[in-house]
Amino acid sequence: MSDPIEEGLLLAPKFDADGLVTCVATDAKSGELLMVAHMNAEALRRTVESGEAWYFSRSRKALWKKGESSGHTQRVIEMRVDCDQDAVWIKVEQHGPGACHTGRRSCFYRVVPLKQTGAIALQFRDAEKTFDPNAVYDKK
Amino acid sequence: MSDPIEEGLLLAPKFDADGLVTCVATDAKSGELLMVAHMNAEALRRTVESGEAWYFSRSRKALWKKGESSGHTQRVIEMRVDCDQDAVWIKVEQHGPGACHTGRRSCFYRVVPLKQTGAIALQFRDAEKTFDPNAVYDKK
Repeated sequence: MSDPIEEGLLLAPKFDADGLVTCVATDAKSGELLMVAHMNAEALRRTVESGEAWYFSRSRKALWKKGESSGHTQRVIEMRVDCDQDAVWIKVEQHGPGACHTGRRSCFYRVVPLKQTGAIALQFRDAEKTFDPNAVYDKK
Repeated sequence: MSDPIEEGLLLAPKFDADGLVTCVATDAKSGELLMVAHMNAEALRRTVESGEAWYFSRSRKALWKKGESSGHTQRVIEMRVDCDQDAVWIKVEQHGPGACHTGRRSCFYRVVPLKQTGAIALQFRDAEKTFDPNAVYDKK
């Protein structure tokens, strides 16, 4: 008998103990991984209804429209859900010069070298700043 | 002053209350998103040291080498960490016909249609089975 969560057609997100699912955002054109964040039920509902990315900030414990401070909104081109429905994937059209609050296109700008033990020294990769976060975010 | 977590070179993963970081696995050649899972400190250490993907299963509460049952291991070509170090991205060479335990190449085989309200009917996309999970997984 097939599992309705895995093989069914009803969206039934499996929220974790904090009421969240993981969301992976990639650039719809280049395929580049831009960011990983979380959505609660309300963020997911707003994203589906509006076609614009909404998230839930774990640190600020607040619903958050991507780009509400920076203007760097994300238009969702396609959304998918994974087998056990605890993660969603959005392919987005990223508006503005970047998705990362550090001023970069992607949040994944450091490589973890492999085949190492002990303390790991990261290496910057694709880490050039595409905007000045101090100029973009409210400094109040 | 720059934030050492965001701008530093020391790998300092920010594990959540359950001791986990999110891990996104993409196909190193095609860029396709294969799966989203979690790593605890031990899974992360083993992945870095061995160059093979290890995860921590939240449902089984167990360390888990990808492919230990199916043989569908993942060789890590590159690992990256995100700005706040609570997510890692691995680009992998996926061995065998697929990464998903349902018998598909990727776990993300259903589309969530946008601009809808109420109950959402998913649509299968890239959902063809590439292997028979009943033949691959132990049925004890």
